[in-house]
Amino acid sequence: MCIGLDVDLGKIPKHLLLLDDPIFEFNKQIIDATHHLAVAYKPNTAFYEAYGIKGWQSLEKTINYLNKKYPEIFTIADAKRGDIGNTSNMYAKAFFEDLNFDSVTVAPYMGSDSVEPFLAFKDKFTILLALTSNKGGLDFQGLKVENQELYQKVLQTALTWKNSNNLMFVIGATKAEYFKSIRKIVPNHFLLVPGVGAQGGNLQDVCKFGITKDIGLLVNSSRGIIYAGNNEDFAQKSQEKALELQQEMATILEAI
Amino acid sequence: MCIGLDVDLGKIPKHLLLLDDPIFEFNKQIIDATHHLAVAYKPNTAFYEAYGIKGWQSLEKTINYLNKKYPEIFTIADAKRGDIGNTSNMYAKAFFEDLNFDSVTVAPYMGSDSVEPFLAFKDKFTILLALTSNKGGLDFQGLKVENQELYQKVLQTALTWKNSNNLMFVIGATKAEYFKSIRKIVPNHFLLVPGVGAQGGNLQDVCKFGITKDIGLLVNSSRGIIYAGNNEDFAQKSQEKALELQQEMATILEAI
Repeated sequence: MCIGLDVDLGKIPKHLLLLDDPIFEFNKQIIDATHHLAVAYKPNTAFYEAYGIKGWQSLEKTINYLNKKYPEIFTIADAKRGDIGNTSNMYAKAFFEDLNFDSVTVAPYMGSDSVEPFLAFKDKFTILLALTSNKGGLDFQGLKVENQELYQKVLQTALTWKNSNNLMFVIGATKAEYFKSIRKIVPNHFLLVPGVGAQGGNLQDVCKFGITKDIGLLVNSSRGIIYAGNNEDFAQKSQEKALELQQEMATILEAI
Repeated sequence: MCIGLDVDLGKIPKHLLLLDDPIFEFNKQIIDATHHLAVAYKPNTAFYEAYGIKGWQSLEKTINYLNKKYPEIFTIADAKRGDIGNTSNMYAKAFFEDLNFDSVTVAPYMGSDSVEPFLAFKDKFTILLALTSNKGGLDFQGLKVENQELYQKVLQTALTWKNSNNLMFVIGATKAEYFKSIRKIVPNHFLLVPGVGAQGGNLQDVCKFGITKDIGLLVNSSRGIIYAGNNEDFAQKSQEKALELQQEMATILEAI
């Protein structure tokens, strides 16, 4: 299980707003309450950039806290970056070196030389958008190209890139029926699966078709866990929700 | 003409590195030396994020300087963002409200609801990636879908989105031969054209096919202008290069 740290100041408990850095304080309490249930945390950079320099500071404090206190936990900068080669290299430096995340999400639209600069970093993972969980996801990803759909072509092409063993892929939970054919193309790569919870993805179907005997899934929940409570006990409430989801996953895994 | 402010500390004149904020000082001098020749400036966010909080501060100081001293100049956050709806809305707030850019570049892969939150901002422009200037650009953008190429489908589909009059499109100068057919699909939208200069695009062809009697192009040059010199007179050198490009464009425009 991966927990998405998408912190909106309009949605966190009011008492935190009196503190110097409400976003970091919120994250810290959520992390401390759930770290034994999660294998990964995924801050979405949009929610930090929206608050300018203060937001970027909260992001930096959050990743530093994770790296120092829970170094075994996998960290994902959900940034959906991607640009021409020399520019992608700057993004890779920003997330892999300056902030020291273990991985970053990247958009495929600009092709090989927009992604390979990320893949060049040793011991870091590049999580490529393939099939996303949102309503408009299929606008382009579902288009027929060469007798398959665009997201399948993206998966297939990405496997040919340099250092493709450093790839994972984003496959939305709201598209559970696609997992079977996806696993035929990428049998050996981790999949990051957002869309469980607030977006309504079906966990059982996702696990049934997405997990193989060799490799698993990182199932992400953001709003469903972090906004479980809205009072002083919000971290406790998020722990309960995380435990619920973790147990649900354990039950499903046993049955597979 | 648009000037790209893609500032790499390894490439700017050494004497600036002694200052408190070398990136902002570099930008300020370039802007002051070229503002009468440019209609737009385009900082690429990767080059700021790579330096963490200090970089984000340099970006904020640069946009504030532009908005205050040269309010008539159009500003582009070259950020290539795009995410599910509520997240794209946070990115739009970051660039349109917090930083107060006039426009931001956005990637199309996640479809309608990843772009429409940007389009909802009045008097702001969303510059959608269509056909990019890099080598890998055609990996996916050039794929055949429904008897056209993917980038054409992106252009066509984007026109159906809500507030599509707030759109511009990125079309790389390195693909000059495509401009004729592109203008048939989007006759009335501004195009942002990177790839002149360091990337080798042909300005004459781009203008010939991209400019119509109703609407023009924003031709961008970054490295070709800002790194024209590497000593104390770097701003003067960048002015000379900018003037050269501007005169070249004027000559071409007269001939059309």
